[in-house]
Amino acid sequence: MNLMGGTVIMPSLRCTKCGHEFSLDDARLIVPRCPRCGEVLEIIGEEPVWRPRGSGLARYSSMLVIKPVMYRGEGGTQLVVEEYRGLRLWFKLEYTNPSGSFKDRGSALALSHASMLGVSCVVEDSSGNAGLAVARTARISGMEALIVVPRDAPEGKKRAIRLLGAGLVEAETRAAAASLASKLAREKNCYYVYHLGNPFFIQGLETIAYEVYEQEGVPDAVIAPFGSGGLFLGIARGFEKLRSLGLARKQPVMIAVQGVEVHPLYDAVHGSVVASGSSQLADGIRVPDPPLLSQGARVVKESRGRVILVNDEEITRALQGLVDRGFIVEPTSASALAALDKIIDELRENGVRDVLLPLTGSGLKVLDELVKLLGA
Amino acid sequence: MNLMGGTVIMPSLRCTKCGHEFSLDDARLIVPRCPRCGEVLEIIGEEPVWRPRGSGLARYSSMLVIKPVMYRGEGGTQLVVEEYRGLRLWFKLEYTNPSGSFKDRGSALALSHASMLGVSCVVEDSSGNAGLAVARTARISGMEALIVVPRDAPEGKKRAIRLLGAGLVEAETRAAAASLASKLAREKNCYYVYHLGNPFFIQGLETIAYEVYEQEGVPDAVIAPFGSGGLFLGIARGFEKLRSLGLARKQPVMIAVQGVEVHPLYDAVHGSVVASGSSQLADGIRVPDPPLLSQGARVVKESRGRVILVNDEEITRALQGLVDRGFIVEPTSASALAALDKIIDELRENGVRDVLLPLTGSGLKVLDELVKLLGA
Repeated sequence: MNLMGGTVIMPSLRCTKCGHEFSLDDARLIVPRCPRCGEVLEIIGEEPVWRPRGSGLARYSSMLVIKPVMYRGEGGTQLVVEEYRGLRLWFKLEYTNPSGSFKDRGSALALSHASMLGVSCVVEDSSGNAGLAVARTARISGMEALIVVPRDAPEGKKRAIRLLGAGLVEAETRAAAASLASKLAREKNCYYVYHLGNPFFIQGLETIAYEVYEQEGVPDAVIAPFGSGGLFLGIARGFEKLRSLGLARKQPVMIAVQGVEVHPLYDAVHGSVVASGSSQLADGIRVPDPPLLSQGARVVKESRGRVILVNDEEITRALQGLVDRGFIVEPTSASALAALDKIIDELRENGVRDVLLPLTGSGLKVLDELVKLLGA
Repeated sequence: MNLMGGTVIMPSLRCTKCGHEFSLDDARLIVPRCPRCGEVLEIIGEEPVWRPRGSGLARYSSMLVIKPVMYRGEGGTQLVVEEYRGLRLWFKLEYTNPSGSFKDRGSALALSHASMLGVSCVVEDSSGNAGLAVARTARISGMEALIVVPRDAPEGKKRAIRLLGAGLVEAETRAAAASLASKLAREKNCYYVYHLGNPFFIQGLETIAYEVYEQEGVPDAVIAPFGSGGLFLGIARGFEKLRSLGLARKQPVMIAVQGVEVHPLYDAVHGSVVASGSSQLADGIRVPDPPLLSQGARVVKESRGRVILVNDEEITRALQGLVDRGFIVEPTSASALAALDKIIDELRENGVRDVLLPLTGSGLKVLDELVKLLGA
């Protein structure tokens, strides 16, 4: 805060469309979208301070606008550096987070915001890694959780969510699940986690960049899957904040990865394209209409990055490469390495040497699927 | 090394039964048991130096007799501290290791020894966490791995081992698998990992104690499952070495946990007992004749510890308690908390406050089993 007179800056939220501002503890933010127009909110007026203390996610509390209070064992993942065809790859083992994915970090911050608003229950609409992470964070926080899933979600995933004590609500489709989730949140005065666009969820993911900075510094490039875009934006903002504090001198080139079938970010950055082939495998990046699309496109352009499309064959080959390196991950995690293999010559020619690849989700949950894919 | 004259001490291996000594690189140690009498070997003449550098397992190279060379992403697990009925519990999240268990640490050191002996293939006889860890370490080291499993091992576990590129050999029983493994090792000039008694495997597990020391200090007590005893002994020796260097002033009381059905350590320490009830769940501690039994008994006695027996009901209740805390672990991991609940009053009365509980294996591999057990 500015104590020397002048305007006192306080962190708040601003709508990315209508520009209205809201305080962080505005009760209407139990659905963390603009209360006026429904669009995505962004955090403004941050005053981050670099004062890492303790371990895991909470080590970076001073860099975050709200103090994490709902967490247990997230973050502090290993970074494995390896020479590869003239580059140094920095593999960030996000799949070793407690529920098996990076979503644990976002969930911890989102539920810390829920706690600030005084609610005691949360709603989320994902049957995948986000659903599991939210169910887990709610459990350790003593909050009730309701997870809305499409009726045809795999039984195994539903059971894992129930194991963590969450209630399950079924909807007809994925879209129906999303609208039911925000409706339920308002009706029951619960917090809608909304991992697709919740600015606190994304802020939790900044901690990946902070850890990498302490472990190895700032990479020349980041290659990350872009589904909702939270991971991609969180990492980019983390490095940007380090630069704004004078701690880092460069910003990494941000390279996003999508599948050949569903690629809204590619279209937004490079112009519409019809790509051939299938990309069923990387289900974590099959998000047709991500709320953070324009932010994602801006980050790609400003960092002189690009969007790479990958297909199932390329993902499978990269997945085998990761398993051979001892990284037991789910197929979505392999999309980043698949993309790297397509542009490696170009990266080298542009002077890129250090490349960060977040490995997003654990393969231990889907061992049977991996075995089938890789023909073991 | 002693440079001031007198005997130069070099680390070597000594048989715990016949007392013969062997150099670390003795070619016969591809089966790391006494070449003369077949008994367990122990490392002697260590000169550990406290000089932590870097991250993960290799951070503690200066404390180990051989430098880890076969590793990728092991260790550096989070420690979660929590108040519980007047105690402070230190949960060590070993289940977040890359293959989902603490065995990754032991495997890394054992295969580093194999590499010192110049062999390029390894044999192991476990279809559980050790088999998976060894297959993974071999894969990242470019070594061939043969895993010998009992014919009736679960298909899922066999597939996971194949996924990591290991060859599978089937034997009639678990005992037959063990003798076939050491036979194959000699025939093919491969290294027998022998996690039940390999002194290097155990030394890798010392790194758990070193991390805990840096994270929170030395606990008053450790409660750990005792199957083969490697985890239990590794932690105890790690803390003992810290004390011998003057870094720690106390040694934790070492409390071992076994099931009511199979409890050789209990018998060795407290005298033979017939306990009622079943303990099928904690399959990680069902080892009827562990080679490290007498070492385990000595550590329990010298530290004024004891052995606690737990049954399936107690394990299930503790497992629910762990899941409620957000720790998605396998049943064996819950045996330590089950034991704690049985002796908590006594611990408090004896002035114990800080208790380390290693959480050994991931539940993500066995989600269906957890759901069935906990009725989710």
